[in-house]
Amino acid sequence: MGDQRDYTERSYGEIDVGLGQRPGIVVIDFQKGFTEEQYPLGGAPLIMRSLENTARLLDTARACGIPVANCYTAYQGGLDMPYWKITAVREQFRLGDPSIELDPRIHEPGYDVVVCKKGPSIFFQTGVVPYFIKEQVDTVIITGCTTSGCVRASSIDSFQWGFRTIVPEDCVGDHEEQPHRDNLRDISRRYVDLSSADDLIPYLEKISANRRAAV
Amino acid sequence: MGDQRDYTERSYGEIDVGLGQRPGIVVIDFQKGFTEEQYPLGGAPLIMRSLENTARLLDTARACGIPVANCYTAYQGGLDMPYWKITAVREQFRLGDPSIELDPRIHEPGYDVVVCKKGPSIFFQTGVVPYFIKEQVDTVIITGCTTSGCVRASSIDSFQWGFRTIVPEDCVGDHEEQPHRDNLRDISRRYVDLSSADDLIPYLEKISANRRAAV
Amino acid sequence: MGDQRDYTERSYGEIDVGLGQRPGIVVIDFQKGFTEEQYPLGGAPLIMRSLENTARLLDTARACGIPVANCYTAYQGGLDMPYWKITAVREQFRLGDPSIELDPRIHEPGYDVVVCKKGPSIFFQTGVVPYFIKEQVDTVIITGCTTSGCVRASSIDSFQWGFRTIVPEDCVGDHEEQPHRDNLRDISRRYVDLSSADDLIPYLEKISANRRAAV
Amino acid sequence: MGDQRDYTERSYGEIDVGLGQRPGIVVIDFQKGFTEEQYPLGGAPLIMRSLENTARLLDTARACGIPVANCYTAYQGGLDMPYWKITAVREQFRLGDPSIELDPRIHEPGYDVVVCKKGPSIFFQTGVVPYFIKEQVDTVIITGCTTSGCVRASSIDSFQWGFRTIVPEDCVGDHEEQPHRDNLRDISRRYVDLSSADDLIPYLEKISANRRAAV
Repeated sequence: MGDQRDYTERSYGEIDVGLGQRPGIVVIDFQKGFTEEQYPLGGAPLIMRSLENTARLLDTARACGIPVANCYTAYQGGLDMPYWKITAVREQFRLGDPSIELDPRIHEPGYDVVVCKKGPSIFFQTGVVPYFIKEQVDTVIITGCTTSGCVRASSIDSFQWGFRTIVPEDCVGDHEEQPHRDNLRDISRRYVDLSSADDLIPYLEKISANRRAAV
Repeated sequence: MGDQRDYTERSYGEIDVGLGQRPGIVVIDFQKGFTEEQYPLGGAPLIMRSLENTARLLDTARACGIPVANCYTAYQGGLDMPYWKITAVREQFRLGDPSIELDPRIHEPGYDVVVCKKGPSIFFQTGVVPYFIKEQVDTVIITGCTTSGCVRASSIDSFQWGFRTIVPEDCVGDHEEQPHRDNLRDISRRYVDLSSADDLIPYLEKISANRRAAV
Repeated sequence: MGDQRDYTERSYGEIDVGLGQRPGIVVIDFQKGFTEEQYPLGGAPLIMRSLENTARLLDTARACGIPVANCYTAYQGGLDMPYWKITAVREQFRLGDPSIELDPRIHEPGYDVVVCKKGPSIFFQTGVVPYFIKEQVDTVIITGCTTSGCVRASSIDSFQWGFRTIVPEDCVGDHEEQPHRDNLRDISRRYVDLSSADDLIPYLEKISANRRAAV
Repeated sequence: MGDQRDYTERSYGEIDVGLGQRPGIVVIDFQKGFTEEQYPLGGAPLIMRSLENTARLLDTARACGIPVANCYTAYQGGLDMPYWKITAVREQFRLGDPSIELDPRIHEPGYDVVVCKKGPSIFFQTGVVPYFIKEQVDTVIITGCTTSGCVRASSIDSFQWGFRTIVPEDCVGDHEEQPHRDNLRDISRRYVDLSSADDLIPYLEKISANRRAAV
């Protein structure tokens, strides 16, 4: 009944991406609408876990001078909004609403470049690609939520733009565990290497030490 | 332990996208490398099924004057290639290789706009958005393979660009059934309406009849 | 000494673009930094003239329900800024500075889609293309300043994205008259039709009447 | 009569862009349609001069391992073409026509990344930005034709994407001298530094020597 070879037999996931020399970090949609329980999309356990791990990773990143791009999703109204099927996104993610404020645990004003995005991907029609070009970023570390939504979209775009793309599993989260896992499976077969906050922190420190030594 | 509301409780999938008045169709990567069993990525049953249904849908579409954008993935070499983890993509999808030729069952030379894409999404750095702008397309029907790869990426981009996005389930395929289903689940909660070739054929015919009546 | 055929002999400007059925208007950088004399870049006569004519054009456009995209240029700091050679842009166009506020004569809050742009083109990494796709715009009318800077860049992008592009000469302005004329010459040979506020106002009214009649 | 300050008084051109550490070169539209006199757009003296100087610059660049992106403009037909006002572009720049072949004096197959572009800018919906991201290019040197058309458009895009942008005056050309000069004036006030082949050749050699020393 057709050709039943599975993903492994068809050579998916055989080649690692690898870490480069100039990492940058993107932080996806850790706005209060996702990180506070009072909101319809807020407070899922996997998301809260990823928030904590991302905060740790970012502390190191900023101490090391690594570029950080932070984003939230918000609209002026219906005109600048794509055809979302999610009532809470359509009704609540409006400019001026407190649900779109970045969670202070992952945002450092003055350090991070912050963009307001309209689509799922942090790279879609925002200033993040030009920012990373200016910083000569070659490796993008993806953090934030949700794994099966904006993290997936941002991972694809990071890959398409030519960056080495790394997803620390414990720095991305979702409302449910199954889609979280399914999406990590899909992207790690094709586009990204999986990692963790604990593995990436020493990498960032080493990069920073090397740069200091080179100067 | 945290906020356990699931996707439904959080209002995902509550609002339908709906069909517009000016559909366009994209056909993703039905190149021989995916549609012929001799190739490492070729001949999966779900992909062959989607090829047949897409061919039927396209016959109607072309008779009705609906815009069709067709694509294949191919590289000059390592320089213009992102960091693919799939050996078969890296080694075989090269300009000049027979595996990148479009399957004749879904391609009509002279009618389709054809683009060579480098990333997963047919919209990424290709001429498809300008083509659809010129045609005033408001609704994109996504066909091709694989559901968990380039179809997923193209669906996200279609949504981001502001198009109503429709995925006929039987016109998209994958190497395995589980990722096919998982990705239809993810995107139909957020970005797209699911449909089928049989449901879309009369829609295309009606659009075409309406236009003729208006002239 | 080589082939001396000039632009006309080489067939430039021979084919008109023509007006379509679904116009949209972009308004480029009529922020106070350009429209008030107190600022280093403010108050040039041609710019003040274009501001008045654009205000007239927009009054009609909004009464007719035509989409309007308005923009200003502003930066968080050096990180999100390209390599501008203009001191006043680098130092003054900062988020929070009064020079980046839109001139109230050309902005209607709640009606216009407003974007903060980082490059010369209003279409570059902003939400304007998706907005115009959603509105099925086929014809872009370019207004604002400066003709030899952001108007030129936006005209090229409008053309590249597949829109019919129209530049009303009296709705675009510059610091000096010579570059204003030179750039209208360059773009009208290649990409755009020139027009005027007086010619476009009845066109917008007619479009609007036709649409009402069709409903 | 209004505020008559000129460009210089308003601080244009005050800050140099400067050269970075990782240059890349783009070569715009040196296809036979522009470089051979038999064609309607071919053989202008300034273009032939720029072809020779670009060939010299590229010899050094390739010997030094500098990335080179080469392009031509060509269409399948009317569907994938923007609203050009130039008869010769509309009718002759078709896939398969000999006028779209790259002039062998500036193209090295196997070394250059080659893209077929549809708009004036080499960066618009092509693979050049991802290629330069992969190569961590920070400085783009623009060569080709015409200064008042595709060179202008590519210079704006290079600037917008966050690259340091350098235009060697003798490596870009036009059908007439006045628009050539006007456009160099406009872009060098805002976005780019002007240079020459003779000044850039030692820069490329020095970059290359530094890299070899660092390994």
